[in-house]
Amino acid sequence: MTFQAPIDDIMFNVLNLSQWPEVSALPRYDGIDHGDIRTALDAFGRFCSGVVAPLAQAGDVAGARLSEGRVVMPDGYGEAYRKFVETGWQSLSHPAEFGGMGMPRAAGAAATEIVNAADMSFGLCPLLTDGAIDALSVNGSPEQQALYLEKLISGRWTGTMNLTEPQAGSDLARIRTMATRREDGTYAVSGSKIFITYGEHDLSENIVHLVLARTPGAPVGARGLSLFVVPKFLPEPDGSPGARNAVACGSLEHKLGVRASPTAVLNYEEATGFLIGEENRGLEYMFVMMTSARFAVGIQGVAIAERAAQQAFAYARERVQGRPVDGSSADSVPIIEHPETRRTLMRMRATVEGCRALAIATAGWLDIAENGDETSRNDARAMAEFLVPLVKGYCTESAVDVASMAVQVHGGMGFIEETGVARLYRDARILPIYEGTTAIQANDLLGRKVQRDGGAAARCFAGMVVDTARALSMGDAQSQSVAAQLDLARAQFEASLNHLLAALGGDVNAAYAGSVPFLMLSGNLAAGWQLGRAMLAAKAALARDETPEFMANKCATASFYAHNILVQCAADRARITEGAPSLRDATL
Amino acid sequence: MTFQAPIDDIMFNVLNLSQWPEVSALPRYDGIDHGDIRTALDAFGRFCSGVVAPLAQAGDVAGARLSEGRVVMPDGYGEAYRKFVETGWQSLSHPAEFGGMGMPRAAGAAATEIVNAADMSFGLCPLLTDGAIDALSVNGSPEQQALYLEKLISGRWTGTMNLTEPQAGSDLARIRTMATRREDGTYAVSGSKIFITYGEHDLSENIVHLVLARTPGAPVGARGLSLFVVPKFLPEPDGSPGARNAVACGSLEHKLGVRASPTAVLNYEEATGFLIGEENRGLEYMFVMMTSARFAVGIQGVAIAERAAQQAFAYARERVQGRPVDGSSADSVPIIEHPETRRTLMRMRATVEGCRALAIATAGWLDIAENGDETSRNDARAMAEFLVPLVKGYCTESAVDVASMAVQVHGGMGFIEETGVARLYRDARILPIYEGTTAIQANDLLGRKVQRDGGAAARCFAGMVVDTARALSMGDAQSQSVAAQLDLARAQFEASLNHLLAALGGDVNAAYAGSVPFLMLSGNLAAGWQLGRAMLAAKAALARDETPEFMANKCATASFYAHNILVQCAADRARITEGAPSLRDATL
Repeated sequence: MTFQAPIDDIMFNVLNLSQWPEVSALPRYDGIDHGDIRTALDAFGRFCSGVVAPLAQAGDVAGARLSEGRVVMPDGYGEAYRKFVETGWQSLSHPAEFGGMGMPRAAGAAATEIVNAADMSFGLCPLLTDGAIDALSVNGSPEQQALYLEKLISGRWTGTMNLTEPQAGSDLARIRTMATRREDGTYAVSGSKIFITYGEHDLSENIVHLVLARTPGAPVGARGLSLFVVPKFLPEPDGSPGARNAVACGSLEHKLGVRASPTAVLNYEEATGFLIGEENRGLEYMFVMMTSARFAVGIQGVAIAERAAQQAFAYARERVQGRPVDGSSADSVPIIEHPETRRTLMRMRATVEGCRALAIATAGWLDIAENGDETSRNDARAMAEFLVPLVKGYCTESAVDVASMAVQVHGGMGFIEETGVARLYRDARILPIYEGTTAIQANDLLGRKVQRDGGAAARCFAGMVVDTARALSMGDAQSQSVAAQLDLARAQFEASLNHLLAALGGDVNAAYAGSVPFLMLSGNLAAGWQLGRAMLAAKAALARDETPEFMANKCATASFYAHNILVQCAADRARITEGAPSLRDATL
Repeated sequence: MTFQAPIDDIMFNVLNLSQWPEVSALPRYDGIDHGDIRTALDAFGRFCSGVVAPLAQAGDVAGARLSEGRVVMPDGYGEAYRKFVETGWQSLSHPAEFGGMGMPRAAGAAATEIVNAADMSFGLCPLLTDGAIDALSVNGSPEQQALYLEKLISGRWTGTMNLTEPQAGSDLARIRTMATRREDGTYAVSGSKIFITYGEHDLSENIVHLVLARTPGAPVGARGLSLFVVPKFLPEPDGSPGARNAVACGSLEHKLGVRASPTAVLNYEEATGFLIGEENRGLEYMFVMMTSARFAVGIQGVAIAERAAQQAFAYARERVQGRPVDGSSADSVPIIEHPETRRTLMRMRATVEGCRALAIATAGWLDIAENGDETSRNDARAMAEFLVPLVKGYCTESAVDVASMAVQVHGGMGFIEETGVARLYRDARILPIYEGTTAIQANDLLGRKVQRDGGAAARCFAGMVVDTARALSMGDAQSQSVAAQLDLARAQFEASLNHLLAALGGDVNAAYAGSVPFLMLSGNLAAGWQLGRAMLAAKAALARDETPEFMANKCATASFYAHNILVQCAADRARITEGAPSLRDATL
């Protein structure tokens, strides 16, 4: 079935939830208004529906293949990528000084959602390039920036992240790849990296690998890692791709999903690398990028969930099966009319809209954290850093659930590969794993985002939920009932927070045993809160009689979320506050 | 990795939860004791580990293929099936009068779990044969039974169920296949059936298709369906396979999972069929079988979850990654030592053991319902009929979750097909769909098992939970805390039940909008209840110092279930009692 970019919902979120008044006032966005964003996203949406989405099914069947050391992409990917570069979409949210369109992060997040909804295998390529752009923008030397940024931002060159080795996944301290300094100041990089997304392919003139490696005599563990640029072709002084570097694709993985995206084993044999920043600060530089990368993967979760929901709604509207339970017809009806199917469909829609709202709100804070003035910056950064593990963890776990629900709505047809929805179920499964598993996000949340500041950011977040609930409680009955559910969920959050902060001071293992439920509870509350904010905006729009159908549905979705998904917080709270002792009794 | 049949846990469940004193006293099981069951399951476990499990990975890659109208099974399946027949495993729980071993249903359920855990693609073949045996045992004429039963019970012939057509999935009233009576009393069957598991293959001498079809002039809808035996080869008077019947395999589906199991489109062109029972009573006969078939699919859920848990535990023991959060070591440790991984692993184990306990308990009641005396029969039947949709719905939804957790525990390796755990994630996904989707089970639960008797069976179930909780509350502190959680969950169940019974008398759509959460809540409670019974038995065994390690772990698992999984009932209760109005507000 065809894919339609959800531009109306995206723009509603940008305008109402992304801190738009503050973001649009940032000097960086002088001359860009929301009309420009809509125009760009509209055009990008058409590109993704028309050019990218049609690749996905055949691309999944064919998969990326390795042939004599070269990666052959499935039919059509080369042509689609060429058009992507021509129309300049890689540049959407990158700075104008390197040729970018310079749009705000929320617009960039929306574009990431759209392309990954069309075909996540395709979308991974620009996503990794974005990561390389971020790394070089923040930590690259002026010469490195001049050499690489424009090429990457144009999309003519693509980027990769080389972290994982067989013994070093979540545990980067175990990295063994070595980089030895040569007399000319370059480094000889040797070692094997695995799980490198778009590590080798034929879409672009050059591939810019960012590689974490160890230098001789460096401190053991994570503090002895340095970051290197290792281009596939060494750039000539004029910037054109020159000699082939000594990095080769050893094999491609056979994966459960995103099968058109080549996942490479890369073997470096004294490949020429260029140090980024200083030695032994590689992990620190990676952490800067990690926030962006984790945020982007959370957006991929929104993307897969959106696509799965679209497909399930379409099927449920056309599939006629079974008579109404209320006896209102003697004939079979489309399954969208059956109450239990409606509930599943609404669960999908509310999850998608809640996750999108959370992601776009976070994009706004990330933007202010990077581009705001001294005073607004710190608050926004604290908020964004608290929310990013929720976006990554909650939106990706939700994507797996929503994709599974989409298969379920299709019944037996969902299990048939040609239907296409099974592909989403397979693609989704990597999302809670890469760029840090859900457990890694949860431990980051508990350790770095909660314990480190004694719960200050978490309490600030809870306070903002209180404000939203209070505003809703002054509205109509529907708003009030949402306010009540938000209050309940926020109380569960605070009870969990207090319990965990106390446990962190005593039985640390018991605290961390609750980290994943705490992440899920927090993500659920954060998404419900954003839908609460959305409801406030929608009620105000309804009062002005502005797009009443859209706004009434937004209110219904927020209400459904509050009464059917936020209620999950009670169970997660129990797991956090009462679940750990029984874990201690078990022998595993 | 290798598969180990969980015989100790199975036997614990048979002895303590399957109503063993009553079942073993049934005249049908004269001369069979639990030692015989263990001996048989031990041997079958070795067969499945040694012969069946090694097929699964390569079988998934190769898939069943159609070549010039013939289905070619992946390498090794023919040889393994031949050994399966030789050793007589198909006959395990079938009656001795037709050559069966005549073991109780709980033993049959255990065998179904074991073979499906080894390779669900393989296990589907005997599972469908079991269905055909059940249909003919209950409704076949003596001649039909004489002709088919021994062949099917030996496994030399296999069986299929032909219900689904493109326009008739959940909605069997829409079946169009026609069966026209000929002068010789046979029927000419014409039409197309889809999604026919093992509808064509080369494993057996003959395939016995059971086909739902319509006769000319029959009433419209479900009341005009009749059931036919349509053998692939028409049996000669001496029982040997004779002329080829006019049923052909049109194509095989490309499926998300169970790819070695051939899922056929079968085209009938005036094929010769033999009426089972009377015309227009086909659906009624199917309902008899459906209970068994749904129960068996629930067991497949236990099987996939068991296999996924085994694989995740093994990986977590060997994968070294990350230092302990409590600072107890400066070195990285196996991930099984990290608290959040331990929680996931315990969630898998508790879910598997809870679902197995529920399934084997239900097997006991099914047995008494079929083979007990007049008085015990009716109570057991009411209980079994209430529990079967829970076994089907809850155990299969749980299997999808557990398989997904197993992928997650493997991190990036889980996404690589060669690891094998991704196959379980794919295989699991059909379980909540076939033999009636979760929504169909939920509506069956609410309509036929709750509304029809005014909630009597449901209240009887709740009363039995009260008894177990009361017994636990007289035990030690661990038992008491489980009793408290059981009481809370039971109260959530009763609140939901009361709400739904009231809604069924008014807003039927609102009631059915809660059917799936009610199924999940009920299944959760039923599994937690069985683990409560298991805990009582384990505490008694501990007092006798009987296998103390096993028994202490059983208690820990029951406690973990109560404090981490039963707590989910609070959220589902809220969905049921408060979720429906917000659904009514939405425009889909």
